[in-house]
Formats: sequence, C-alpha cells, structure tokens
Amino acid sequence: MVRKRQILVIGHNDNGCTPEHEKIAYETGALIAKSNSVLISGGLGGVMKASCRGAHDASGLTVGIIPQGEHSAANEFCDIVIPSGMGLARDFLNALSADGIIIIGGGSGTLSEICAAYMHKRPMVAIRNTGGTAEKFADKFLDHRENIKIIGVDTPQEAVKLILEKITA
Amino acid sequence: MVRKRQILVIGHNDNGCTPEHEKIAYETGALIAKSNSVLISGGLGGVMKASCRGAHDASGLTVGIIPQGEHSAANEFCDIVIPSGMGLARDFLNALSADGIIIIGGGSGTLSEICAAYMHKRPMVAIRNTGGTAEKFADKFLDHRENIKIIGVDTPQEAVKLILEKITA
Amino acid sequence: MVRKRQILVIGHNDNGCTPEHEKIAYETGALIAKSNSVLISGGLGGVMKASCRGAHDASGLTVGIIPQGEHSAANEFCDIVIPSGMGLARDFLNALSADGIIIIGGGSGTLSEICAAYMHKRPMVAIRNTGGTAEKFADKFLDHRENIKIIGVDTPQEAVKLILEKITA
Amino acid sequence: MVRKRQILVIGHNDNGCTPEHEKIAYETGALIAKSNSVLISGGLGGVMKASCRGAHDASGLTVGIIPQGEHSAANEFCDIVIPSGMGLARDFLNALSADGIIIIGGGSGTLSEICAAYMHKRPMVAIRNTGGTAEKFADKFLDHRENIKIIGVDTPQEAVKLILEKITA
Repeated sequence: MVRKRQILVIGHNDNGCTPEHEKIAYETGALIAKSNSVLISGGLGGVMKASCRGAHDASGLTVGIIPQGEHSAANEFCDIVIPSGMGLARDFLNALSADGIIIIGGGSGTLSEICAAYMHKRPMVAIRNTGGTAEKFADKFLDHRENIKIIGVDTPQEAVKLILEKITA
Repeated sequence: MVRKRQILVIGHNDNGCTPEHEKIAYETGALIAKSNSVLISGGLGGVMKASCRGAHDASGLTVGIIPQGEHSAANEFCDIVIPSGMGLARDFLNALSADGIIIIGGGSGTLSEICAAYMHKRPMVAIRNTGGTAEKFADKFLDHRENIKIIGVDTPQEAVKLILEKITA
Repeated sequence: MVRKRQILVIGHNDNGCTPEHEKIAYETGALIAKSNSVLISGGLGGVMKASCRGAHDASGLTVGIIPQGEHSAANEFCDIVIPSGMGLARDFLNALSADGIIIIGGGSGTLSEICAAYMHKRPMVAIRNTGGTAEKFADKFLDHRENIKIIGVDTPQEAVKLILEKITA
Repeated sequence: MVRKRQILVIGHNDNGCTPEHEKIAYETGALIAKSNSVLISGGLGGVMKASCRGAHDASGLTVGIIPQGEHSAANEFCDIVIPSGMGLARDFLNALSADGIIIIGGGSGTLSEICAAYMHKRPMVAIRNTGGTAEKFADKFLDHRENIKIIGVDTPQEAVKLILEKITA
C-alpha cells in the first residue's frame, strides 16, 4: 500500500465524553500520527475532537467526515473536511474510509459505525473500560461470525499497535 | 396524518432466517396490511421478503428500499421499489422512512437500522425469542436514554397493535 | 413487470413555477394516475406538488422522496414519504427510483436529476416551452451518446404516452 | 481558515479524456499542490487521475472520493481515499468537499457535480476549449442566478489563480 493507513477513531461524542475519554482519545490520536497513519474521524466533538487534537499536536494528518454540508461545522483540528450533507448516514462513510478502527466508548452513533464496519469487514479494536457500546459487543453479537471480532485492549498503545498489525496483515 | 402509517419490518436476511422467522414475518406483514398501513422493508430476502409476501397476500401496499441501483434486485412482493444505489447505507433510509418499526431477530444490518432509528427517535417493538440483535438490546444499550426503548412482545398481533399505538400517540 | 410503473416528474420548484407550469404538472400527474402508474417526485413544492395533487385527485398513488429527515416536510399530496435525510443528494434516489421521467422546466436541481437519470440510463421526456434546463439540453449535451436522448413533446398527454411506451419497450 | 483550501478538479473520465486534457489536468494538479492547497477529486481515471498525478509529482496532498466501497478502486495517486459505497451519488460529496472547483471538460458526471456545486454555492472556474459540459454552461444556465457564475479561463495558471482568489474572498 503506497498511501498511508487510514485509522478511524470512534466513540463518545460531546454527550458522555469524560476527561478520561478525552485523554485516551488524545493519546490514541497522537500515536496514530506518530505511526505515520492518517486519522479519520467524524469531525465533531468528544472523542472525535480529542483524537484530532492529539494527532494534530503530533504533526499528523486528520480527516473529518461530518454530517453537515459545510466545512465550518467540523472541529478545528481537522486538516481535511468532508462535509457529507447526508446527516448521520455519514457513519457509513466513516467506516468505509477506515483501514482499521479504534473504539473508545460510544453510544448509538458509535454502534452504527461498528455495524457498518462489521458488514464491510473492517478490523476493529476497542479500548476496555471506556463504557458504552463496544464493550458490550466485544464479547457478544459481533464475536462469532466471519472471523470478525472486536478485540479489547487496555491502552491506546496496545490499540494502535494491534490495529496496525491487523491492517498490515 | 392523512397519509397511511409507514411501518418498517426488519430482521434476519437470507442468512439466519428460519421457517419460524418467515412465519412470524409473514403474519406481521399481513397484519400491517390489514391495519391499512404501508409496509416498508429493505426489499430483499428473509424477513424482508416474508413480510412483503404477507402484506401482499393481505392486499396491502409494500415498499422495498434496496442497496442496489436497479429495481430488479428487489423481491417480487414489493409494489414500489426504491433502488438507492448507496449500498448498505440505505439502512438509514429504511429507518427514516418508518413511522414505527417491528424487529424480528436480525444481525448486523438489523442493528444498523436500529441505531439509525434510535438516533432519529423512531418507535420500535421487538418480537421476543427471535434471536439476534434486538433481544440483547431490548434490555441493554437502547433502554435508558431519551425515553426510547425497544419494547419486547410475544406475537405479531401484539407487535402491530403496540406499534400502531406508539405511532398514533 | 408485476409492480406498477414508477414515473418521476421533475421540474421547477417553488422558485420559478408559474400557474402554467402547475397546470401542466397537475395534468401530467393525473394522466400518470389514470395510466395506473405510480407517481414519484421530490415531494416538495412547485411542479412536485402540482403533479402530486393531480395524481391524488385522479386517485393515483404518489411517493415523495425528500431531502429532509422527517415526513412532515413533504407536501400533503404524498401518499408515501421517503425522508432521505441526505439533502439534495436525494436527487439520485429520485432518478434511480424512476422507470421513466417527465421533465417540466426546472433549474439546477432538475438538471442534477437529469444527469443522474442519464448516467443510469433512465428514459426521459421533456415538455417543450416550459423553460429551464431540459429544453436547452434536449438538443445539446445529452443528445448524442449511448442512444439516450431527452425527447421533447408538446403536451402532458404526449409525454405520458411516450414515456409509457419507452418503459414498456 | 486554518486548514488548507480544498480544490476539486472535475472533468472527462477515461471516456473522452485526450492527452491534451491530461496535460491540462496534470498542470492544474501541480499548481494546486504548489499553492499549498489540497486536491480533491473523484479518484478514478481521466482528468481525475491526471490531476492527482500532477499534484503528487509536486509533493501535494490528494484526496479521492470514489463511488466504490473499497479503497483499491482509487487511482494510485490518491494519498487519502474515501470509498463512499454510494455509487455516483458521491458526486455530491465531491462538490460539498470543495472550497472551489476547476472544470476541465467533462460529461454527465461532471455536470452532475456542477449542479451540486451550484446548489451549494461553491465557486467554479472552467478551462475553455476543453469541450464537454461546462463550456456550454459557462454562458448559459448557471450564469444568471445568485451571482454564481462559472468563469471561463484559458490556462491552468489562470484557473488556479482565480479559484484561489474566489476562495479567499
């Protein structure tokens, strides 16, 4: 692959994103940047913004794919903005754009992205103890079919390391 | 509301749809037709097809919103076909088109529709003991926020009765 | 084809739609209904609304595929509403949903639907002397490739007759 | 604006793209890169590929938004690939992603992007004597409303200079 790996970070939006989530997302974004990968995100707040900020501070490249139709709705740490104009159905664009996905908590929107990713066979890693959707799913619904499984890890370091392995494999 | 109520039926596609699921879906489709509502579905196989057939046999009106770009990909019991050409992201169209939703088992595609419906506040009823996604969710993730809750019922009769009440309310 | 033919009517929206356009659109909608076909439209105002009203008054079935995410944004003559939630990109859904298309004037939105229809090889008929986009195109850009050509006619009667022939063929 | 300007280049795809078009597209892409802007394109062949190659050779950053659902369908000069999975409706994503647009010939797909851009008020510049759609439109349909006008220029240099002025203004 000539182009850089594109890693999507998903999780809690402004509702539900704690300082702890932000810290994890920031570190994850920074590690993605340091791995010379592109950070893809939904371009809005919470985990999306914190991961973009982390990648940005580490001189990485960030892409935000947003529901709105105008660039200005994205957070200020998106280097490239894709204003989809298609509302929350942009969750499918996020998932399809990913070579691999890291999950940090998250609710119904995150779960929608997980479903899209699952159907399109994108590898996923979830950071444990971040609450929300992915954790319940890591050992349930998505675990048993087609060898696609959300693997739980404990740290951003492990998450980035593992997703890179899965993409390269 | 002058127009008829639009009820979406979602659940197992060809993979995982048993004769028992088909029977439940068929009855659900027929009851939707008898209630003078329009059946919306994803227009393909499994629960989608069985529910369309049920509505069709009861002289109802059926709409299939399909991933493909040509009408011919829909099952033969769709009176109206919306070929979206947008792949599985059409799950969002299904959810948005629904005034209310009935869930009969289902996997990752069904869950994607549930997420879209949840985010857009469409009422949902799940038929119990049909396996799959919705049952796990009925008492977990989607249960606690914004008064949107997937209510579990035991029969197609209860499902159609309850969803009509929720739409009318 | 078991299902009814789906005929899309496109043209001027509220901006630019004159009483004369409305009259033509109304008659076209009524004739579509009388031909036992389903009228598809963009579900909003102008030619969309007038054609829906015409079909409605002739006891036909009308479908409105709208940019918004809620049913209530559609005009009151839509029997079935597909709230796409994807903004103006729903023009592609309109075009793809059509077995054939009738054009009554129209601007950039109509032209966008014409392009989508052209790329997906849907037959098109334009009513002459209605201004707007289609007339300029009937003898220009779209005329020369792949045997797809927008044919100009003078009346709603001719338009519906011709598009039905093209669909059946 | 902190982020870089995003300039979309549209025009002939593999069908209709001559060596002359490729030369113009290549130069346009290179000039976009040299202006420190991001090149957005539809990510496939013809003008899309030639402009990506030009930007790439000038060490620029290129984004390809493609109809397909997998990254591999993009041309090899896309640094970032957005596999939309939504078919040709991705033309709307292209237009919305642009701060400004340069048109080099083009057929129905290009025209569809022009319509989307027009409806969303994105500034456009067309390179003259490249055939296709835009030239016919530069002095017709799109000329008279809302102060949006496709301005014709003679060279890639003029096109990039002018679109940058329009974006900055």
